[in-house]
Amino acid sequence: MLTSADQAFAARLTQAVPGIRVETPEPRYLQEPRGRHHGHAGLLVRPHSTAQVAAIVRACHDARVGVVPYGGGTGLVGGQIIETGPAPVILSLERMNAVRAITGHVLEIEAGASLQNAHDAAEGAGRLFPLTIASQGSAQIGGVLATNAGGVNVLRYGNARELCLGIEAVLADGTVISGLRHLRKDNTGYDLKDLLIGSEGTLGIITAATLRLFPRPAALGTAMMVVPNPAAALALLELAEARMPGCVSAFELISGQGLAFLDAVGPQVHQPFAQHPEWSVLIEIGLPQGLDPQDALAGLFEAAGDLVSDGVIASSDAQRAQMWTLRESLPEANKRIGSISSHDISLPLPKLAEFIDIARTQLSAMADIRINCFGHVGDGNLHFNAFPADGRDRASYENLRADIAQVVYDLVDGFGGSISAEHGIGRLKLRDLEHYGDPGKLAAMRAIKAALDPRGILNPGAVLAQN
Amino acid sequence: MLTSADQAFAARLTQAVPGIRVETPEPRYLQEPRGRHHGHAGLLVRPHSTAQVAAIVRACHDARVGVVPYGGGTGLVGGQIIETGPAPVILSLERMNAVRAITGHVLEIEAGASLQNAHDAAEGAGRLFPLTIASQGSAQIGGVLATNAGGVNVLRYGNARELCLGIEAVLADGTVISGLRHLRKDNTGYDLKDLLIGSEGTLGIITAATLRLFPRPAALGTAMMVVPNPAAALALLELAEARMPGCVSAFELISGQGLAFLDAVGPQVHQPFAQHPEWSVLIEIGLPQGLDPQDALAGLFEAAGDLVSDGVIASSDAQRAQMWTLRESLPEANKRIGSISSHDISLPLPKLAEFIDIARTQLSAMADIRINCFGHVGDGNLHFNAFPADGRDRASYENLRADIAQVVYDLVDGFGGSISAEHGIGRLKLRDLEHYGDPGKLAAMRAIKAALDPRGILNPGAVLAQN
Repeated sequence: MLTSADQAFAARLTQAVPGIRVETPEPRYLQEPRGRHHGHAGLLVRPHSTAQVAAIVRACHDARVGVVPYGGGTGLVGGQIIETGPAPVILSLERMNAVRAITGHVLEIEAGASLQNAHDAAEGAGRLFPLTIASQGSAQIGGVLATNAGGVNVLRYGNARELCLGIEAVLADGTVISGLRHLRKDNTGYDLKDLLIGSEGTLGIITAATLRLFPRPAALGTAMMVVPNPAAALALLELAEARMPGCVSAFELISGQGLAFLDAVGPQVHQPFAQHPEWSVLIEIGLPQGLDPQDALAGLFEAAGDLVSDGVIASSDAQRAQMWTLRESLPEANKRIGSISSHDISLPLPKLAEFIDIARTQLSAMADIRINCFGHVGDGNLHFNAFPADGRDRASYENLRADIAQVVYDLVDGFGGSISAEHGIGRLKLRDLEHYGDPGKLAAMRAIKAALDPRGILNPGAVLAQN
Repeated sequence: MLTSADQAFAARLTQAVPGIRVETPEPRYLQEPRGRHHGHAGLLVRPHSTAQVAAIVRACHDARVGVVPYGGGTGLVGGQIIETGPAPVILSLERMNAVRAITGHVLEIEAGASLQNAHDAAEGAGRLFPLTIASQGSAQIGGVLATNAGGVNVLRYGNARELCLGIEAVLADGTVISGLRHLRKDNTGYDLKDLLIGSEGTLGIITAATLRLFPRPAALGTAMMVVPNPAAALALLELAEARMPGCVSAFELISGQGLAFLDAVGPQVHQPFAQHPEWSVLIEIGLPQGLDPQDALAGLFEAAGDLVSDGVIASSDAQRAQMWTLRESLPEANKRIGSISSHDISLPLPKLAEFIDIARTQLSAMADIRINCFGHVGDGNLHFNAFPADGRDRASYENLRADIAQVVYDLVDGFGGSISAEHGIGRLKLRDLEHYGDPGKLAAMRAIKAALDPRGILNPGAVLAQN
């Protein structure tokens, strides 16, 4: 049983952690982007060093006080918010944002640096850190790793886990794991790095990481192509990968509904096609020297035959940026419309088109709703979101919300898919994980949680229910 | 405390596991490739199904009998051999070798299939499974994953962990984890897959896996180039990756000593250079359509200037195969010469050349020895092996063996490298891990082992010392 982080504990913390200031959290630490959860918290600490983090966690451990590790606050599953129960300490990494070292292959950076900071540091060294998500200006490296973030470049470069070579982290009893390896190969014992990555702050607090840097492609090519349906999109991807293996870095599905939302509520963006195609894809390639990306995309368009009915190839960086702005504005348009229920799911690629068909049919039969289905289709990852009919309020669908999610997740589960492709479990999907998760895996997760955090102080109630 | 797998236990097993035959292990199950360890074992079981594996493990758990999961037996660190203590059950996966399913992106295959089986299945589907190691005809998928095998294509495609999407595994109490996902993105809870991969059979027994398949490159190019020193090799790699980002699939360093060993003891192979260069590299690239790999390699050779003094570009599949035969024969030549001490290490790339210089100097000052330094230099992974002087016996160096390893590992550790890049810890490097490993990581490893295998029955004494 945990106890609240009250003023008496604030005094203990101040004493136990040299140089720390214990604050009352501003409202921003208690909110999350979708406005569904509102946190309560007694105390905020913003340590400057790993030693301070360790001392804070040790004090919380001793006093059985919960700790919420806090990054950029951009998570979409409530992993950063505790609504009820004993008030926790919010431990924000924001002051630990230094680039500790950079070489041609590795960026060693603290958890509180933003993802954009990592991009900038890599670019400054003439390199690429490929992980790209819409919230990268605010999202912090610690949160990106804690949630194993994905985004638009997983297809070629992998997710956060695959892009991380090592971590420094503080465990529940204050033990520091020093694992900032600059190594591609290291088989010395259990893979704690990958266990902590994606554990959403429930097994340890990541304080710094070594990230893989890549050579920048000699040239990028970007295009939007109109496809008749999702199956054709996947066939086009197959064709692109056969012609340019390993060179397709992004392959994003966009639905006409999403384009209509942009028209209706903004953000204002340039739309490349006069009429909104029901389905289109944004494709990006990075090629070796000696090939012209525009030619390569034109060649793909030619070879695609009936798979593609129209297309625009970016002929300048500005056009390329326009296409990406359109893609990255879709979540904001969704937010302005206001979803009934959002689903970050993944499917085996051979099942993906069938899933979209069936799920749309089933949801349409339930209610008069609009569906915006888009996302990282090259990874099998869809954002399959249900919205009110035009002119109706989402409140009027409140009683359907759980049913919609269940229909989607049941279908996903039946197709061997995942109910959380890239956003994680947090608190929003806790019960869904219990319901759809493999019982053997859940039992092992609980055993590991109990072993590494026997008092349950780390992000209590996220991923796994509290005892 | 464990008990021996004796005849009474054999009877219990026969009763507890429908359809199982309990055998006496042939000598091959008690040997390992370097001949340094000799096992003892009471019983051998070769189950046909995951259910049988679960029942066997449950029976061992109940009776506190150790289990050694057995794959191809090709491991180089004694992970497959128990020399002393209570006799274990050897659980060979060899009869579980089916391809369960294959799509364009995923191969679902049982643990007892050989790595070559996986290559063949992928090729049959027009795809590539890139993990390539010299022992792939014998090495089995379960062992490849349990040891997180690396090999020559990690540079482009990643190691076993990165190539595996999901596993089915049996935990110490017989619980089955069903995680054969066909998904690139799946953030539903802790990453048990990556925890079990590389745990060398000490946390669970992998019974099947889903492996990533890739499109085959439109064309492969292979060359050997002579470089003045390891630093030039790394600069050449940098140049190659800048010109062809993501297209360099292998970059292997070969020393003149290795070529001389091949001459002296075989295997007989074609050597492309009349004189043995002190340092050369084998480079392989896979390019998108529209580029000729031979032209690309010739262009690299031109651009390399002083980094390369001579080179041969394969102009046929036969020549390509010859180059790879040379590379893959190096371990066999080493075995025939007989090393004093072998070291599978990795270094941060910027430190690698300096390490080679210093390590050679220090070892040469200790004794009259020959060093064969070769390996996957693109990954920072060297096989840095010490051999007797010409005409001398390795027995006469026995008293130096531990000292040589210590000099190498101390240097590696000082440079932030790994004492086991791709072979794992097994029993051979148990004490080294305790000495060089991060204490926080080791404590967490012990906690996880105790949580998932409280009786310590799974591969007892590998990776972590027994209590």
